[in-house]
Amino acid sequence: MTAVAGIDVGGTKCLGVLFDGGKVVNSVRRPTPHADDLVSTLAEIARELGDYKTLGIGVPGLITPQGVVRESPNLVGAIELDLRTQLEAELGHEIDVESDATCAAHAEWQFGAGRGATDMWMVTLGTGIGGGCVSGSKLQRGSHGFAGEIGHMVVESQGLPCPCGQRGCWERYASGSGLATIAGGERGEEVIARAVAGDKEALGYLDTFGRWVAVGLVNLTNITDPDVIVIGGGLAEAADSVMPFVKKWFKELLYAPDNREHPELRVAQLGERAGAIGAALLSAGV
Amino acid sequence: MTAVAGIDVGGTKCLGVLFDGGKVVNSVRRPTPHADDLVSTLAEIARELGDYKTLGIGVPGLITPQGVVRESPNLVGAIELDLRTQLEAELGHEIDVESDATCAAHAEWQFGAGRGATDMWMVTLGTGIGGGCVSGSKLQRGSHGFAGEIGHMVVESQGLPCPCGQRGCWERYASGSGLATIAGGERGEEVIARAVAGDKEALGYLDTFGRWVAVGLVNLTNITDPDVIVIGGGLAEAADSVMPFVKKWFKELLYAPDNREHPELRVAQLGERAGAIGAALLSAGV
Repeated sequence: MTAVAGIDVGGTKCLGVLFDGGKVVNSVRRPTPHADDLVSTLAEIARELGDYKTLGIGVPGLITPQGVVRESPNLVGAIELDLRTQLEAELGHEIDVESDATCAAHAEWQFGAGRGATDMWMVTLGTGIGGGCVSGSKLQRGSHGFAGEIGHMVVESQGLPCPCGQRGCWERYASGSGLATIAGGERGEEVIARAVAGDKEALGYLDTFGRWVAVGLVNLTNITDPDVIVIGGGLAEAADSVMPFVKKWFKELLYAPDNREHPELRVAQLGERAGAIGAALLSAGV
Repeated sequence: MTAVAGIDVGGTKCLGVLFDGGKVVNSVRRPTPHADDLVSTLAEIARELGDYKTLGIGVPGLITPQGVVRESPNLVGAIELDLRTQLEAELGHEIDVESDATCAAHAEWQFGAGRGATDMWMVTLGTGIGGGCVSGSKLQRGSHGFAGEIGHMVVESQGLPCPCGQRGCWERYASGSGLATIAGGERGEEVIARAVAGDKEALGYLDTFGRWVAVGLVNLTNITDPDVIVIGGGLAEAADSVMPFVKKWFKELLYAPDNREHPELRVAQLGERAGAIGAALLSAGV
């Protein structure tokens, strides 16, 4: 048996994959339940995936190295949830629990858009913004496992209030909900559809949005000097519309742009399965 | 011979040290010359320091792994200066050239306030702000050697203009010049002296300043999750006055402060010699 299994716990769905020989050979999907039912749902998905050597779970939020979910904005009721211990008891074998963004970063680095990078950021632009980081050719989790909370990087000190309690967090401007805010409440998908059709107002919104995305990417670049930044999450599906604006503003906003190499801005290749694939790989130590 | 030598090139002075057995055993100081005379000045300092096994130079700005100074805000005329090749020709032996903030971070990590950290930021608050980073128990330079330009992290997108060409860079608010701006042009040293004497207006300025310092430290923490942040540079000399405000605001502004471990905020221990000591250590691969 060489297959490894991973499950990505999202805000709305849990997606499990069985990964073998560099490919997804089975997948299972369930709506994300209340935190009280999370362990039993994950166990069901794991059993349904079929035989695996190791199992990893990717979870959004602050995840300790011991697999405890300290806090998770998208999992109602998940405070100090000892996911690893509970799911190990349910399944009768060891599992691995990691931050979902760390998992996605690892998958894109090993099998996707980040291949060959020595210093990489994976930035997932969805409802919020998540991040995973490779520095010095090593996946980084930070000293307590909490690295990559880049959505809460403050880019506008007196800016919009964030549900986290702060003001001016990057994800208030550069996520899917940020795009909706910029467009006065219109849904991001609609703005993008109008922009694709050539609507000038919508293109203006995307320009403003691209600038906000670039502000954060430039900050990450000034701070860690990556050679590759992988853009993933829901908004990556609209990359053809969004990325030209992001790239234009990135060049405008970077520190000393003419005296340095710039990171490549690449679009993620593994789509919504990145997190589950990464969780599977990390559980096997690959 | 076991001594190693390092020279820190600052905006106003060049400081050389001879480091042996964990101690500085000789030091030499010269005003920083125009870039045209930098090589000869550094050679003079090196010869005056005495016998050494290896020599390292720490330089502010964008320094390539080949020791070329791409751009240096504090060194007039230093654009694409091939410092390593020129100084090696002048001295007749190999040398090492690194970013000054990387050197200071390494020295504090090995012999100063950062001892024992696995994930550390060294933040130097001087005229500007410099940064050096340890992630996963390894000193990080980024993919092109340009990591740590944290002073140009944007924290106020439509904020004060920065000489770098952008707006709202952290160092416009949280450096020595930032404190002067907050205080309406009064020198930072004077503000601090008044605050020490209990002056309420000056204490208010320090509170505002401490908040700005904390905004950037919180961003670094959300992004990389360090266990230690070392505060160095000129403002660290006023740590007793400044750090209480920084610590107060750090707790206020961190993402999910109640659900996570916080990094220790420590004051640098090696003072103005950190950069030179680090350059010496790195040149010897220590």
